[in-house]
Amino acid sequence: MPGTEPPLSDHQLVVPPPALDDVRSDTERMLATLAKSVSGCNQMDIEVTRALPSVLRSQKWTAQATVRDNNEVVALGPWPSRTLGVAVDLGTTKLAAYLLDVTTGVTLAARGAMNPQIRYGEDVVARLTHALSASDGSAKLTATVIDAINGLVTELCDEADMDRTRVLEAVIVANTAMHHLVLGLPVEQLSRAPYVPAASGAMDIKARELHINIGRSAYVHMPPVIAGFVGSDHVAALLATRIDASAAPVMVVDIGTNTEVCLAANGHLASASCASGPAFEGGHIRDGMRAAAGAIEHVQMDGDMVRVQVVENGEPSGICGSGILDALAEMTTHGVVDSKGRLNLEHPRVRHDGKTAEFVLVSEQQRAGKAALSVTQADVRQLQLAKAAIASGIQALLEHECMSSSQLSAIIVAGAFGSYIDVRSAIAIGMLPSIPLERFQQVGNAAGTGAKMALAS
Amino acid sequence: MPGTEPPLSDHQLVVPPPALDDVRSDTERMLATLAKSVSGCNQMDIEVTRALPSVLRSQKWTAQATVRDNNEVVALGPWPSRTLGVAVDLGTTKLAAYLLDVTTGVTLAARGAMNPQIRYGEDVVARLTHALSASDGSAKLTATVIDAINGLVTELCDEADMDRTRVLEAVIVANTAMHHLVLGLPVEQLSRAPYVPAASGAMDIKARELHINIGRSAYVHMPPVIAGFVGSDHVAALLATRIDASAAPVMVVDIGTNTEVCLAANGHLASASCASGPAFEGGHIRDGMRAAAGAIEHVQMDGDMVRVQVVENGEPSGICGSGILDALAEMTTHGVVDSKGRLNLEHPRVRHDGKTAEFVLVSEQQRAGKAALSVTQADVRQLQLAKAAIASGIQALLEHECMSSSQLSAIIVAGAFGSYIDVRSAIAIGMLPSIPLERFQQVGNAAGTGAKMALAS
Repeated sequence: MPGTEPPLSDHQLVVPPPALDDVRSDTERMLATLAKSVSGCNQMDIEVTRALPSVLRSQKWTAQATVRDNNEVVALGPWPSRTLGVAVDLGTTKLAAYLLDVTTGVTLAARGAMNPQIRYGEDVVARLTHALSASDGSAKLTATVIDAINGLVTELCDEADMDRTRVLEAVIVANTAMHHLVLGLPVEQLSRAPYVPAASGAMDIKARELHINIGRSAYVHMPPVIAGFVGSDHVAALLATRIDASAAPVMVVDIGTNTEVCLAANGHLASASCASGPAFEGGHIRDGMRAAAGAIEHVQMDGDMVRVQVVENGEPSGICGSGILDALAEMTTHGVVDSKGRLNLEHPRVRHDGKTAEFVLVSEQQRAGKAALSVTQADVRQLQLAKAAIASGIQALLEHECMSSSQLSAIIVAGAFGSYIDVRSAIAIGMLPSIPLERFQQVGNAAGTGAKMALAS
Repeated sequence: MPGTEPPLSDHQLVVPPPALDDVRSDTERMLATLAKSVSGCNQMDIEVTRALPSVLRSQKWTAQATVRDNNEVVALGPWPSRTLGVAVDLGTTKLAAYLLDVTTGVTLAARGAMNPQIRYGEDVVARLTHALSASDGSAKLTATVIDAINGLVTELCDEADMDRTRVLEAVIVANTAMHHLVLGLPVEQLSRAPYVPAASGAMDIKARELHINIGRSAYVHMPPVIAGFVGSDHVAALLATRIDASAAPVMVVDIGTNTEVCLAANGHLASASCASGPAFEGGHIRDGMRAAAGAIEHVQMDGDMVRVQVVENGEPSGICGSGILDALAEMTTHGVVDSKGRLNLEHPRVRHDGKTAEFVLVSEQQRAGKAALSVTQADVRQLQLAKAAIASGIQALLEHECMSSSQLSAIIVAGAFGSYIDVRSAIAIGMLPSIPLERFQQVGNAAGTGAKMALAS
């Protein structure tokens, strides 16, 4: 990942036109002019070279050159032209993408989308299984996610009224499996012990080689991944949260379909990845939905009464991650589930038809005849798996450093889901350690922030 | 153009397999092993990275890595694998291609083909006109010549029984117009004063970007061009003839549809390019053909008698360049044409039908009723243009250096055509200067030799 220097820089050029006594090629004369403002840049992408003669002649021998890492010309345009970048946080369930003006660092637009690979499997393990079992499985997963990225770039550029050919750099952070799939790298060795990546170092690849439709000469920067199941999204999140700069022990919990946990203590960083599944993003939950209008985002019990808070205050139509977490916490506190996760069939809001039991949040009457919104016994089992995965990751790291949670000076909760949850609920169900509330920070999509930081200084 | 170091080197690798206590990525472990035999190589082409996991596992963690310029891995294979290269001399009329073992420098196969762009124009000026006037003209010229190169690679690999994916480098030398067309660079500025190239420096481009079907990670190396009409073929020819190393004045005449002339004198090189046209390659000549079986390659007159020598001694079916040159020389010496190039209608072997006159080399009777093979008045005009173009180029360079031809210590005649001609004939018609015969050297396709030198040390 680049340091404080942004990867792209713009330079205004006034190039001397050719004459009978100066028949240098267009490339030579242009690079000679550029050398006055950036030394040592002697490479030009073939697509820039193809465009150069007409750009120089149509713009009366002036131009703006965009230079990458001070050594390659990756775009030409009229002076001044805006130079844009795209940062993508490619999650197993969701994609978040940001359009930046890389000169100012300003975010011009932000968009999210579901990862359409979901049709091939809900979690990383299911995707890898599909990649290996179906013919062309891997190629289809790659094509699917590239399409999704291209779609987000279109939306971002439409929203900001910008030209996608001026997007001259993309940074994509992802877990290791998604990183491999977007690059078309094989995943077989990722799915078998000892789970090694095909490549782990930072990579810079022409966007056109990956069929990502931005500037013709633009690069895609892929920050490094750490190991088979600790990806560059985690690296980006650590960059964004600056936990390396902390003297006291700090933990980052980046919650998603894969949850990454990192502990900075005793002068080093240790990371763990937990397959927490999509339950906290509304997946595998009967009445689950994403955090959009109509989603129950908070749940509170008062005796046997249930109060719900709905996104945009409309009629409830489903339950999103933070609502599910609250519900489980309240159910635990109020004896609706026991310590093993079994629904208490005696509870007045629990009903069962012999096959399945459910805890009713909003009844048919309250929904004017529509089906009730409930947390089912099966939902509770999914949430237990997710919760246990995260809690185990946290515990394993603490044990590795011979620490207890009370020694943590801070727990940074990252991830889109992590920014909406009630930390008290997460503690109540045992997902997060029970330390004083004021030591928790909720920072949102730290991976996306880290990806944006890699685009601009 | 590379120096004495060949661009590709092969390295045998024995890579430690991953284990629970060594989960480095395949790329990391492979580059760490490679670092023992070549230091500083930290790049790997994405296509190599994609192949790496299965290559290492299927070959029990051994491999041969091919490294380019000591900094990028461009192929993997079992040890030992042969590493091949292709050198292409891309002429306006003909292509010559050579398959080399780049480790030993041995030429494994050689092939020639007509340049199929010829359907869009016989010479460079006609091609440029087509590129600029027809829609997609330039793209079609590019696709046509790339197809031809791919066809030659197929033939070369078939002939030598080699796998084209082991061709890991191609070097293409060409005049500036052909250089631009093969790279897809615009040619408009090449066709207008002051005739500047879009790019002139040496370029290295992935073969896949040019749609040249060799190794997936192979590069195409394009040596530098000098100016609008002095191409990299000329640079390659100069490299092959080593005229820069000569203390005494030396001239190189590289004859083709474009003829390049270079004079090394007074401590520097001066070059000129002459649009000599395809006449000496059998083009624009009524009974012209290329130098294949049945072509009249030498002509001698004894009084009014004509003796012809035919390639492979069969029945004559046409006249190739060296035969045409001989014929014109003999016609000049024996008074068949006057100093203005007019056929002497009184000569017993000249006949005319009111519209056109022709000098009969082989009559209908000699060909058992088939049409006679002749040199027509129109042919003589074509030859005069070609001859004059070359002679003017030579004269201009001599005048530029204030020299006379008698001061030249050597004239090196290069080009496929140049190696077959009778230099006496070329002197007789005034194409080459009249200096003692022993000062001439005929070196064949020096451009092709130069391209091969760029592949191997």
